[in-house]
Amino acid sequence: MEKIDKYPIYVEPFHVDFTGRIFMGVLGNHLLNAAGNHSQRRGWGIGALNETQHTWVLSRLSIEMEEMPRQYEHIEVKTWVESVMKLFTNRNFAVLRPDGTPYGYARSIWAMIDLDTRRPCDLLSLYDGDILNYIVSEEENICPIEGHGRFRFKDAELARTIDTYYSDVDINGHINSIKYIEHILDLFPRQQFEQGIRRFEIAYKAESYMGDKLSFYIQSVSDKETDIEVRKNVGHEDKPQGEVVCQAKVKFN
Amino acid sequence: MEKIDKYPIYVEPFHVDFTGRIFMGVLGNHLLNAAGNHSQRRGWGIGALNETQHTWVLSRLSIEMEEMPRQYEHIEVKTWVESVMKLFTNRNFAVLRPDGTPYGYARSIWAMIDLDTRRPCDLLSLYDGDILNYIVSEEENICPIEGHGRFRFKDAELARTIDTYYSDVDINGHINSIKYIEHILDLFPRQQFEQGIRRFEIAYKAESYMGDKLSFYIQSVSDKETDIEVRKNVGHEDKPQGEVVCQAKVKFN
Repeated sequence: MEKIDKYPIYVEPFHVDFTGRIFMGVLGNHLLNAAGNHSQRRGWGIGALNETQHTWVLSRLSIEMEEMPRQYEHIEVKTWVESVMKLFTNRNFAVLRPDGTPYGYARSIWAMIDLDTRRPCDLLSLYDGDILNYIVSEEENICPIEGHGRFRFKDAELARTIDTYYSDVDINGHINSIKYIEHILDLFPRQQFEQGIRRFEIAYKAESYMGDKLSFYIQSVSDKETDIEVRKNVGHEDKPQGEVVCQAKVKFN
Repeated sequence: MEKIDKYPIYVEPFHVDFTGRIFMGVLGNHLLNAAGNHSQRRGWGIGALNETQHTWVLSRLSIEMEEMPRQYEHIEVKTWVESVMKLFTNRNFAVLRPDGTPYGYARSIWAMIDLDTRRPCDLLSLYDGDILNYIVSEEENICPIEGHGRFRFKDAELARTIDTYYSDVDINGHINSIKYIEHILDLFPRQQFEQGIRRFEIAYKAESYMGDKLSFYIQSVSDKETDIEVRKNVGHEDKPQGEVVCQAKVKFN
């Protein structure tokens, strides 16, 4: 089987923002679906893993776009495995225009966890190391965007606290990875989106659940760049600082 | 050209709720896409209409489901025009299981408006009445669910007021039709969804915009049935009651 998959995506009308470009959350959803389908087709998808009490967990996602796809366009998402470590795998993506040129790229890091212990598992022993057969060679791995950055929060300020509801939650009862992206972008005023988003990075740290309160702390890096830390249930007696759920960076053009 | 279209839909993992069934908002999105594609293919889609300064506006949507489609299923949405009046058209839908049996049905009402005046236009004169060629015969129109109900609010109580943000808004700058469905369902506690939603009805009354505050008033009809009225910008000096944006009914199993 080929190492690289390409999935066709149609940019639907309700999936674009007021500028007519795809929402970052919707694009993220397409990337995660491509990742799921790519591993499913090779026998190490969620379904197969669940039978052995394992599942994939997304740890990092960084998307960098020259521009965002437009309403009604037929684009493609390409995905492949860049490398495999004992506890993590790096998966890359390219988002292609209708003419095949790149709109942008994305990088992601995944761990495989044991569903009982919630601890990471050894990827090198997964199906006798089958995943290693799908690591692409250096010349095929074209992903010319920066790696995932490090977050350093010093003087972040509370911007908003929200409740979480039914629509935020996925089949596992967790606030879904895509909804965090939406809530984070909802912190910004309309004008910022007129120029479009250049880069979006997120690091998932802990799960949150329906009913958890999420507090969003922002720290400005420059006019165009903001770091965001999301903490759950801040102010509780036993843990007044709450718990860090995810950290993100948004860079506008 | 055939009068009835069928569109294949794949139920994606991030599109299901904690019970593993498709979100009502996502299903609604699929129905609206089917409607858009059906009219597009026949020459009276949004693109063609925009050239003549017209657009379709959704007025009512009522969805009634025996059960909701499950994660990873390949389902189909069937759509057709039931009837055309001077200012409105009735469009119906069937949602089909992988084996072709119906999961449920939906009804919708659409108006065509002039983009300058925002007034409804005469559908019978649209492209010389071309739409009349696509009204299905009585025996083909299988949509065995009740028509759109009437709403009567007497003692509705304020349940929640929310701000609206970037992710709520569509390409026209309006809060999108699907987001209202999400916000309305977010009024209900988790347990209600364990049995699933039987019927969802919504009547769109006025547009709201990013930054508008939406207040949700609920009126219980029975244990399983609730009516909801959404008003924007309640409490403003000039219009303390706000303005009705939409009205909805949710019936759980």
